[in-house]
Amino acid sequence: MRLLNFFLVLLIMPAFVHAQHPVAYMKKADILALKNEIPKYPLLKESYREIKADVDAWLGKDVDVPFPKDPAGGYTHDKHKANYTLMFNSGLLYNLTGDQRYALLVKNMLLKYAQLNPTLKNHPESTSSSPGRIFWQALNDANWLVYTGMAYDLVRESLSLSERKQIEDGAFKPEVDFFTKDLKPWFNLVHNHGVWACAGVGIVGIATDNNDYVEMALKGTEKIGNGGFLAQLDGLFSPDGYYTEGPYYVRYAILPYYLFANALYHARPELKIFEHRNQILRKALLAALQQTNLNGTFFPINDALKEKDYTSNELVTAIDIAWEVYGKDNGLLTVAKKQDRVLLSKGGASIAAALAGKQAVSSQFPYTSVEYRDGAKGDEGGVSLLRSGSGKDLTTLIFKYTSHGLSHGHFDKLNYNLFDKGNEVITDYGSVRFIGVEQKYGGRYLAENKAYAGQTIAHNTLVVDGASHFNGKEEVGEKYHADKLFSDISKANLQVVIAEDEHAYDGVRMQRSLYMLQLPGEKKFIIDLFHVTSDKPHQYDLPFQYSGNLISTSFKYNAFTNQQETLGKKNGYQFLWKEAVANVKDTLVQLTFLNERTYYTISSAIHDSAQLFLTRSGANDPNFNLRHDPAFIIRKQAKDESFLNLIEIHGNFDPIMEFSSNSYSTVKKITWLKNEQDISVASILINGKELLIAQANKDFNKASKHSFGTGAAAVQWNGPYYVTYDGKSIQ
Amino acid sequence: MRLLNFFLVLLIMPAFVHAQHPVAYMKKADILALKNEIPKYPLLKESYREIKADVDAWLGKDVDVPFPKDPAGGYTHDKHKANYTLMFNSGLLYNLTGDQRYALLVKNMLLKYAQLNPTLKNHPESTSSSPGRIFWQALNDANWLVYTGMAYDLVRESLSLSERKQIEDGAFKPEVDFFTKDLKPWFNLVHNHGVWACAGVGIVGIATDNNDYVEMALKGTEKIGNGGFLAQLDGLFSPDGYYTEGPYYVRYAILPYYLFANALYHARPELKIFEHRNQILRKALLAALQQTNLNGTFFPINDALKEKDYTSNELVTAIDIAWEVYGKDNGLLTVAKKQDRVLLSKGGASIAAALAGKQAVSSQFPYTSVEYRDGAKGDEGGVSLLRSGSGKDLTTLIFKYTSHGLSHGHFDKLNYNLFDKGNEVITDYGSVRFIGVEQKYGGRYLAENKAYAGQTIAHNTLVVDGASHFNGKEEVGEKYHADKLFSDISKANLQVVIAEDEHAYDGVRMQRSLYMLQLPGEKKFIIDLFHVTSDKPHQYDLPFQYSGNLISTSFKYNAFTNQQETLGKKNGYQFLWKEAVANVKDTLVQLTFLNERTYYTISSAIHDSAQLFLTRSGANDPNFNLRHDPAFIIRKQAKDESFLNLIEIHGNFDPIMEFSSNSYSTVKKITWLKNEQDISVASILINGKELLIAQANKDFNKASKHSFGTGAAAVQWNGPYYVTYDGKSIQ
Repeated sequence: MRLLNFFLVLLIMPAFVHAQHPVAYMKKADILALKNEIPKYPLLKESYREIKADVDAWLGKDVDVPFPKDPAGGYTHDKHKANYTLMFNSGLLYNLTGDQRYALLVKNMLLKYAQLNPTLKNHPESTSSSPGRIFWQALNDANWLVYTGMAYDLVRESLSLSERKQIEDGAFKPEVDFFTKDLKPWFNLVHNHGVWACAGVGIVGIATDNNDYVEMALKGTEKIGNGGFLAQLDGLFSPDGYYTEGPYYVRYAILPYYLFANALYHARPELKIFEHRNQILRKALLAALQQTNLNGTFFPINDALKEKDYTSNELVTAIDIAWEVYGKDNGLLTVAKKQDRVLLSKGGASIAAALAGKQAVSSQFPYTSVEYRDGAKGDEGGVSLLRSGSGKDLTTLIFKYTSHGLSHGHFDKLNYNLFDKGNEVITDYGSVRFIGVEQKYGGRYLAENKAYAGQTIAHNTLVVDGASHFNGKEEVGEKYHADKLFSDISKANLQVVIAEDEHAYDGVRMQRSLYMLQLPGEKKFIIDLFHVTSDKPHQYDLPFQYSGNLISTSFKYNAFTNQQETLGKKNGYQFLWKEAVANVKDTLVQLTFLNERTYYTISSAIHDSAQLFLTRSGANDPNFNLRHDPAFIIRKQAKDESFLNLIEIHGNFDPIMEFSSNSYSTVKKITWLKNEQDISVASILINGKELLIAQANKDFNKASKHSFGTGAAAVQWNGPYYVTYDGKSIQ
Repeated sequence: MRLLNFFLVLLIMPAFVHAQHPVAYMKKADILALKNEIPKYPLLKESYREIKADVDAWLGKDVDVPFPKDPAGGYTHDKHKANYTLMFNSGLLYNLTGDQRYALLVKNMLLKYAQLNPTLKNHPESTSSSPGRIFWQALNDANWLVYTGMAYDLVRESLSLSERKQIEDGAFKPEVDFFTKDLKPWFNLVHNHGVWACAGVGIVGIATDNNDYVEMALKGTEKIGNGGFLAQLDGLFSPDGYYTEGPYYVRYAILPYYLFANALYHARPELKIFEHRNQILRKALLAALQQTNLNGTFFPINDALKEKDYTSNELVTAIDIAWEVYGKDNGLLTVAKKQDRVLLSKGGASIAAALAGKQAVSSQFPYTSVEYRDGAKGDEGGVSLLRSGSGKDLTTLIFKYTSHGLSHGHFDKLNYNLFDKGNEVITDYGSVRFIGVEQKYGGRYLAENKAYAGQTIAHNTLVVDGASHFNGKEEVGEKYHADKLFSDISKANLQVVIAEDEHAYDGVRMQRSLYMLQLPGEKKFIIDLFHVTSDKPHQYDLPFQYSGNLISTSFKYNAFTNQQETLGKKNGYQFLWKEAVANVKDTLVQLTFLNERTYYTISSAIHDSAQLFLTRSGANDPNFNLRHDPAFIIRKQAKDESFLNLIEIHGNFDPIMEFSSNSYSTVKKITWLKNEQDISVASILINGKELLIAQANKDFNKASKHSFGTGAAAVQWNGPYYVTYDGKSIQ
């Protein structure tokens, strides 16, 4: 039946195809207008000039299509990667100039691939269950299919029928068959690799008028929706557009999502793919952009390389397509301006026109406090981004209570990270990987990625008995998610989120409340109240991964100055050098560090005795893959414990002008007024004034009445939390 | 006699003073023109607006003049520092607006100081032999005198005679007496502190018409030239304008040099101070700017904080004055544009006018290969800056063979540092200091500064028997300097400097030849040929402090992964963790690291056996004052030894586009063809082609003939060096 379909396509299509193609990347009907716009708008003109300069260098030359041999970073890998970009760009130029030489360049390369691909077995450098053929992993072959499919579509009308057959049978069919037969389970995965695979097969299907390919791409190999693009649109995003693997991976997946949707928009308009699930692709893009730092880099949630920002090609493509299909948007325009290049497309031209106009473009994406639910139904926890301040003084607290995040998830339930003034202050390690660097295991994730970066101790959340959440087992972690209990992000100067987890450790319940405060005329504070309860005694480690120079501590410690050992032997602890240890009891512990030009003080109320550690990553790292980052860890032995920590953002350090102001913490005392199952009340003395934090720990009803104290000192409030500073409430 | 002088001044001066003042910072005659120019030029207008906003916030308020108590970073320190700036700026505004409130603000503050200063003893936080009174060190008191003297001069004509007497007797005389009597040896020092002290006393002298002060400032307390400003102009700079303490300190000293010279230019034009010593102040400024990185930061030679750049106030002042007295200069204009503010002065207005004009301003200071002699007579060694490439692709090699550099000197004879594309690649630790941070020993130099940052092992030059040069004794180091033997920086693609030192270690002679090469159509290389000779066997350690991630090594090493110890116990070695060790023999050793987006490979020809160490700073650092920087150290046991090292700049890493190109070294083999007392010849195989380096080790005569080999393979050349690549010479 499939074979029959295939021949039918070959026999029937050519008759009307001449009118229809190109259609995958752009529609024939749109080309003339685009041609006319290129000289008009500087950004479009420059983007055209750059592509033309790149491609023109190859005109009339014989482009190498080498036999696959090298891992990422090696010659054959990089050459094939460069080749599909070259074919796509040359196909574009053929349509925009009419110059046959561009079509010829693409044809000659496609014919080489038509010779090569049928001869390929699994790549010699393949290591995973989804090996590639042109590249070491199938994912890269999928990238190749996406761009080569569009390139073919762009030059198709210039090819003879026999050339088409040669290419479709030789270059594409072996790859499509490999994906949909040999790698069927992988192809049907609801995962970023699957998105690429379906986009590749689907775009090739549209380019070759092969409906069978398109149907498999949309609904999985069995065409019943057990996999495929529609399942990926439904399953990988929450209803809010949060991508379950996190922003780093949506950055990557957004490209095949948008490119295949764009092709379907042209070739299958009846699908109304961009309207699918209440415009889920629009929500996904905006959610990805909200999850960026001031400099445009994506927040490091789960596996993530911190260098990646929204100027990458993936985001240029998504934004330019979104602009066309969803309409103009000031936030997108801000990002497009920083990208400083556009697609040669209807959307790209429209953005270039907007940027050439007189409209003022905001220098900053419209960041706001926002919460995203995780899970296809939105019922698997989520992430809250609390924001305070404006312009360069923006502070962002990222509180993560999501599901696991598939194979790129980290064991970091109830973790948070803090960004301030564009700097990462309370950090996430990110990933251990040198992408594209052949010497570093072919640019793949390194062993330390799972062994350290994904472990709980590498984060800023509780480690019980020295083991990671779910004992570091992905298959267990994937079954559970944390939950938000309450949040209120409606007030500019007081935002609160409370979340819980009771699956990360057997018999242990964790509940964390984060408050972001801007005190009137004062500084910003993060208040972090972490309750943990259990029937049995445990060792509780609460780490703070901080970025900066340690300036001072309120406690005396014993530093290991001549000889150093690791903090532990497993679960990530073996990667931490123990630099210092302290024993403290019933005291206020403070640690001040300097990050760029701002001071930060962590203040912790220590009840009874605790051990403190100052550590640094980089142990057990014979290949020098790790950074050497400091951490501060509070260790308690207890059944039930409440960690009350403040992070104070203060002062200013100016090494050029040699001024340093407010380098000392203003937190003088932290007192538990009450800390019971139902209610926690703490008094914090700041600059001689009292900051009072009262919260209900179980009853999150906004109407419930709570009270504390008696007589003149009595405090009464409604709802889950109550915060005053110097006797006045904060709004 | 001094007392008599003082009264004479008070009695005689007032009669003609009204016509004369202000004169120290600006001349009365220039004020009207400046007033008219402020609204005309945006940069001048904005600089005026900023100063006015700062000062206006204090108008009508009572400004605190606290009793001195705190070290740097503390309240009283920062307040007094803010106060002198406020008085100066308010004095300026008084002249530019005629508004008496500005004069009143200055007067009230000056009268407070007139009350305070006579009561002061040495500052409670003073630790040095030159204690301050208002501040913890006399240097800061000198800063105060410079600006307060100019402030007084600016408002003098608004003050009654009795107010003047009160201020001159109360605010200034105790400070001047303290400097010139109590701290006489310090005042007469030819050192950056001395420059500030003389400028302070001299400017107060000009402001108060006290000729005695001015004479002491010019010629020292005895007025015989054994100290004072003229001796400092003659003694601290070489004839080329190189400042013996290095560029970081000339950045600091240039301010009092220019401010006092500016005051003398107005008040004592007959001195022709800016013409002094063939315009030494102009040379000093241009030399300081040549010693900066692409981002404007000063190269870290001797004690230096790496954050300091040419946008600091000191350089704004110097450039704006130089522009007025030495005339327009395109390089200064480039820097002025980056400074983005100007002095409210004739020069500042002229720069603002130039920047408001249509003239294109180069984005980069005109960096060139340049050599500076050190020493007042230019006979105490020097420093060579070899440069290659243009724009952002500039590479700079800094070869240091200077004298010691006074109290801020490091023990780093024949050291070099490499900057590339604006990044520090082969590094200098700089200084261990958190300037202005009270918690870090009051912002002073920390103990690790001398104990580590100044020691030889913290640099990139030879350490013999684990001891620093001159056994780390400043008083010995100050007696000697290294010497340049030969240099040729005339060719764009091949530059060479050869220098020697025979004093750093008894009985050991060191000679280092550095070549900077741009191979035709290929990469940039540094070739580093280090000869050391001795009658006795020694341990020779040659460290490379590199900045970046270790990517790969050609040698197997034993990494200390679970437990680590220090490399040694003294002379800076105690601050290095020993991360790995290797034993190698008769081989080519290579280490590749990634710095930002470029790869660098160190290739070393190892003759006989050697030990290699990978280390990281940060041991023995209980207060967390050090950075954690990596180093690669080659250790040899020998009498005579020749280290032949190449640094190859190669490839490109793009984490956004996920491309990595040319990440492998192309150096395949290094062979000594000959290495004898007179001649060294090495063959380096690069990409299958031979790079031949031949040099004469003793005869630096350009006309001398040398030869090597016989028959068809014979090589003959004239002069100290001969370099070919693929049989062709490099120009």
